[in-house]
This record gives sequence, structure tokens and C-alpha cells, in this order.
Amino acid sequence: MGMTMTQKILAAHAGLKEVTAGQLITCKLDLVHGNDITTPVAVNVFKNIGVDHVFDKNKVSIVPDHFVPNKDIKSAEQCKYIREFAHKMGIVNFFEVGQMGIEHALLPEKGLVVAGDVVIGADSHTCTYGALGAFSTGVGSTDMACGMATGEAWFKVPAALKFNLTGKLQKNVSGKDVILHIIGMIGVDGALYKSMEFSGEGLKNLSMDSRLCMANMAIEAGAKNGIFAVDEVTLDYIKKHSKKTPVVYEADPDAVYDAVYDIDLSKIRPTVAFPHLPENTKTVDEIGPKDVKIDQVVIGSCTNGRMEDLRIAHEILKGKKVDPNTRVIIIPGTQKIYLEAIAEGIIQDLVEAGCAVSTPTCGPCLGGYMGILAAGERCVSTTNRNFVGRMGHVDSEVYLASPATAAASALTGYITNPDLV
Amino acid sequence: MGMTMTQKILAAHAGLKEVTAGQLITCKLDLVHGNDITTPVAVNVFKNIGVDHVFDKNKVSIVPDHFVPNKDIKSAEQCKYIREFAHKMGIVNFFEVGQMGIEHALLPEKGLVVAGDVVIGADSHTCTYGALGAFSTGVGSTDMACGMATGEAWFKVPAALKFNLTGKLQKNVSGKDVILHIIGMIGVDGALYKSMEFSGEGLKNLSMDSRLCMANMAIEAGAKNGIFAVDEVTLDYIKKHSKKTPVVYEADPDAVYDAVYDIDLSKIRPTVAFPHLPENTKTVDEIGPKDVKIDQVVIGSCTNGRMEDLRIAHEILKGKKVDPNTRVIIIPGTQKIYLEAIAEGIIQDLVEAGCAVSTPTCGPCLGGYMGILAAGERCVSTTNRNFVGRMGHVDSEVYLASPATAAASALTGYITNPDLV
Repeated sequence: MGMTMTQKILAAHAGLKEVTAGQLITCKLDLVHGNDITTPVAVNVFKNIGVDHVFDKNKVSIVPDHFVPNKDIKSAEQCKYIREFAHKMGIVNFFEVGQMGIEHALLPEKGLVVAGDVVIGADSHTCTYGALGAFSTGVGSTDMACGMATGEAWFKVPAALKFNLTGKLQKNVSGKDVILHIIGMIGVDGALYKSMEFSGEGLKNLSMDSRLCMANMAIEAGAKNGIFAVDEVTLDYIKKHSKKTPVVYEADPDAVYDAVYDIDLSKIRPTVAFPHLPENTKTVDEIGPKDVKIDQVVIGSCTNGRMEDLRIAHEILKGKKVDPNTRVIIIPGTQKIYLEAIAEGIIQDLVEAGCAVSTPTCGPCLGGYMGILAAGERCVSTTNRNFVGRMGHVDSEVYLASPATAAASALTGYITNPDLV
Repeated sequence: MGMTMTQKILAAHAGLKEVTAGQLITCKLDLVHGNDITTPVAVNVFKNIGVDHVFDKNKVSIVPDHFVPNKDIKSAEQCKYIREFAHKMGIVNFFEVGQMGIEHALLPEKGLVVAGDVVIGADSHTCTYGALGAFSTGVGSTDMACGMATGEAWFKVPAALKFNLTGKLQKNVSGKDVILHIIGMIGVDGALYKSMEFSGEGLKNLSMDSRLCMANMAIEAGAKNGIFAVDEVTLDYIKKHSKKTPVVYEADPDAVYDAVYDIDLSKIRPTVAFPHLPENTKTVDEIGPKDVKIDQVVIGSCTNGRMEDLRIAHEILKGKKVDPNTRVIIIPGTQKIYLEAIAEGIIQDLVEAGCAVSTPTCGPCLGGYMGILAAGERCVSTTNRNFVGRMGHVDSEVYLASPATAAASALTGYITNPDLV
């Protein structure tokens, strides 16, 4: 019986010729990752395991990014704890404040993940790296600890959904709209424990940044992972960023899928997920120009804090002024992206337009800091979750959107169709 | 009997020909100011007074800067409260996220204060504007409320200390070193309820940014206000930034001072205030190269977040890398300063050197966010207070220094003489 991309990668890392959905296997890991929230717990578990070293100093990464620069004493204590652990273990890929970025923007940029890898990360959006043709999934802190100790993890082999992409995106539409459209279609449990496998002739029209955004949100449909077929775009990206050698796994022609969805990219419209679930989607054509008054716009996060995202926002905001009653917060994903955005004049124009520009951080996405909402406030955000109270008060609301829709909304103070500004 | 600069300004605003130290007077106010921490309390008091409008919509300023972009739900609620008040009252000078800066960097830049003004602000560092030849002092939220309602405030006329400045600063020495030297000399209660009046032929060698820094820290010696004699530097600055007409008040030749200090600027050395008081000063020559290991450097705040400060830090850090175990946080004082620093290539070089660059905020200075310290951690900071727990845990330590000393320390991870890097 044929295997999917995911199944082939897992089989190879389990030392098996074949695996099937539902099978329990143990895989060798190419990278074990954690952040400042999950790693302290993992370190506690690691210490209880009783080993005195990580399995490979080069294959563990730790990125303090959620509450840094430290937002309070507790986050400072957490960072201190994992910093001391990283130093003691000689972990090469510990990224300090000033030299870092948001984990899922940073790791691909640093070349730590390539096609064919198996990666676990103690953060649910670790699925981002599927854009590079890797199997990559979020785990708990305990699994991170065991992964650091042994270099292995167990998995139940996932079944799969196939997304056959055709066509080309319209202007003002990007990967974020595609994945919101898909989640709206299949629901937040539509891919529960399955792999979402993206392929098809439309793939060539999707930039790596759009793919990273789409894979990032696979978890919002409940998926075990999201993964993209490897093509020239992938290999070019890897060549530019990594010294590692990618291994390409293609799905067998007779691979089994629980369902196959044909997605015509040319039909996707700018899409917004209304509170309080990513599946509550509407296209901008279904939203009136004064339907939803907003108080804040956030453009950033592991979902949409990359160059493509900043360029899209810039294109819409340059030379204009944001609505004076709307706070607009721009968060470049990494220090490298920040520098590139300055070099292109993007940051300057966004500040002139009235935006605040933050150092890389997860900050507002998870209600950490850098743009928390009061009761009754509404935010259009390029982040990935709009659960109740996600960005602050339980009576606040988050509307998930693309950088284009977010930027257009920043100009008007209402959720706005980017085609109309 | 002759009057000091401060006494002359107060007399004019009280409609009196003469005032003497200790006299209780009521003055007309040119500006009443508050921030996101103090204004909510002032608004509550204002509502209890029972008036429905502020005395002058153009003479009230509100700058949310301490905990913005909102660091948590409580700060979001506070900002929402004062935003609604500002809109309802039609307050012209309410500065929203993305369009703001740290209050005491922003107000002079916006031209809201000029020589001869009487200003009260519900923030202790309101004394900053004395650099412009204004009488300016910090008050409580109740006084802010009454000031907003009536346009007046009562004062006890302060006695004065005169600082007669001569000579010219050495390389790597700036206003921060001068004021730390003075506080080290007279103590944190050395100017209690007095005005610190700076004049003398050395004045011409002090930039406006250095003067703003020095006046800013007058309160750290307990002063009611700090004030500088008006000269060409002052009038040039005001001409560039303000549409208001400055009024110059000179001290009478027979003005009475409780003490006169001669300060030879050429003798001032880079100075550091050790924990836990600004008076605990040592020059860098008294500190060994490995005496004080640090974990963090902060360059910013209402004291040292201006262009001169960023240029000094840049000069030392450009083309180099900060110590990998030291977090270095740079906070431009305003959006305008941020843009100017990008235009000069400063931000780019600081990021290349390994610094995190924050949007304008008071953040770490008062233990708010953006660089809070864990137990046992030490920070060299260009801010103004190093009290116990000021920047985080009660067992952390803050060392106050100039931008030059802070930048030099960022390179080595120890408190470092800027002449030696």
C-alpha cells in the first residue's frame, strides 16, 4: 500500500520500510525544540530522567520569544532557568534577546530544518516547518524532555488529507487567506490527528512565506502536521539558508488519503475568521465597510511576520496615515527580517504612517504583552488564534486576517476589503 | 531682595512683583500633563470636582507611555479609560500608540513647553523641561485633576542651589555623568524642595540633550525643579520645535541661594551610581574591569533616549558585537527619534551588534516590561533610578550610567570604562 509524504518520512526515521496510519512507531529526531514557556517544564522533566547531557548539542534549539525582553519577574526567572540549562548543556542553538526572532520564523531562517527532517517542538505551531517538506509537529514539554535525552520520540502514524492546489492567487490574497478558507471549510477539527498534505500545480504560485503561514495553521484544523510537496521554491530556500542536505520524500501515487480537496487558488478571496474560532470565516465581500469597528491591528507573529507580509502591509500603508483611533502594531518575525525591512524602507514608511514597531516577540498573539486588549475592544490580527480572551480580556475580540486585510483595516478603523483602499 | 530664575517665573505666573522662598502662591499653568499610570486617578478626581470640561483643551497633554503598547489587561483598561476621557474633553495633545514617545522626550520635541512656562505633570520626572528655561515640576494625580479643572496650582516658592558650570566635558562624558556626579556630591536629599539652577560659562558646552538629562534627574536629589539659564542653544531648540513664544527670565544678580557649587565640567569622569541609590556614585576609574558582571544593558528612557544618547552608543557599538551573554535593549525616546536614528544608520548598526530595539516606552525603567530582571541579575541602565526592585526582582541590581558607559559595558559584559573600548 502506498504511503503519503508524511508516512514516508516517518518510516525512514523509524528504520521501517513501510508504515500505515494508526501504527505506533519510534523515530529518530533531527531537531528537538522549545521556547521560554515550555522549556522550563521540559528541563524539570529532563533533570528527573537522570541523564546529564542532551543527545546532540547541535540538534536541540531553544528560543525565548514569548515573553522577551522579559515582561515580568516570572518570565525573567523562566528565561534565566533555561539560559543556565542551555549553557550547562552546551546547546549551540540557544538564541538570546537581540540575536533572535519568533521561533517559527527563526528556525527556517537559520537553516535548522530542511526537507525530510523529523522535528518535534514544544509549541503547537511547530507544524510550520512542513512548508519545507519536513515532518514537524508540536508536542508537550515531557516529550521535549525525552527527545532531548534520547533523540527519539514515538508517534502514531497519521492518516492524511490531500489538498490539490491549482491556479494562482488574486491580488491582495496570500497564504493566510488560503488556510483560513480551508479551515472555514473543514472546521477546527477537520483534520484531527491527520496530516494536511499540500501539492498540485498551483504550488508553484505559492511563495515560501505563504507556505510557512499555511503549514503554521495546520494545527488550527486539528492536524498532526501540515506538509508541502518539495519543489524548486523549497530547494532554493533551503540552499540559501541551510548547510544541511535536504532529503525529498514524494507521496506514492497510490498513497491513501481520507479525503482529497481540490483548491482553486484563483477563487480564494480575502478571508477573515470572526471570533472566537478560526473556522468562523467570512470573505471580505460578506463584510460591510462599517460592520466591524476595531481598536487595534497587529501584523506579525509566527504566522505572518515575514518579509512577504511586511511588504504587503507596506504596499497598502505607505504614504498614508492609519486611523488615528486605531493602534497599529507591527512585529517583524526576526532581527534579520527587521533589518531587511529597514533596508527596503518598509519600517520607516510604516512608522510615518503611524505604526508602532516592536522588537521580535510573540507578545500580543497569546495575550502576553505588546498590545493586550481591554474589555470590549476588537483587534484585526494576522496571528493564528482568536479564542475567547486570547489577546486580553475575555470580553475582547480577535479577527484573524491576512496582512493585506489587516493593513486596509488599519487605514479605516473598520474591517476593510483590501481591494477597496 | 533679588529672585532666582524659578522665583521670577513663579512670581510672573502668580501675578506678583516679588516672591520669596517659603511663600505660598497660586500660579497660572501653561501645561498640565499626565501619563497612563497617573491620569486614570486624576480623571477620577476630576469627575468628583464636578466640572464638565478642562480649563484649556490645548494646555492639557496626556501620553500613555509607561505600559504601552498595553502590557496586560489592567494597563489596557487604564489606557481605554484615559483615551475616552481625552476624546470626550477634546484634549488636543493626547498621543496614541504609534504616534507617541516617552512623555518627557515627546513634549519638548512637540514644542509644548518653552522658556518661561509653568508646567505641572503627574510624573516625577516632569522636572525635565527645566532644561528649556521653564518651571516644571512633578505633582500627584489630585493636583493634575485640579490643574485640568482650574488651570492653576499652588506652590510653596522654593529656595535654590546654584550650580556654576565652567569648562568643557571630556570625550565619553555627557550630561548624565554631570548630574550623577552632582547627586553623588549633595546626596538624594541634597536639594530637598529646592530649585537646582544651572548657569555659568560652561553652559555653552552642554547640548540640549545633555541639559534635558540633567534637569530630568533634579528630582533624584530631591529638588522641586531643575532649571537652566536660557541661551542660544535653548532659543535655537525652541525655534526648531515650537510655535510658542519663549519668555526669558534671568536670575537677579543679588538672588539668594542656599549654596553655590562650582562645577568644572572638564573634571567630570564617567560616573556610575551603584545600587540602590543614585547618590552611590563611583567614577569608572574606581571600578575594576571585572568588578561588576552584568546580565543586561538598557539604553533609553526619559533620561537618555534622545539622539545624542543613541549617537554616543552607536559610536561605541558600531561594527562590534555585544557580549553574547548580555541582553542589550535600546529604546529610542520617540517615534521621531527612532526614524532619525534609522536615517543615520544607527538602528541598523545596533541590531547588527546584537541589540534589541524597542518601540518607545518607559518599560524596564520602572519594572514595567521590556527587560525585567530576575533574582541575582544586574543591569547597567541609562535610566534614572536604581532603587531596590526598581527593574524587577528585589534581589536584582541596577547601575545607573551614561550611554557611553552602558555601551562599553554591553561589549564586555562587565561595567566598563568607555575610554578603554
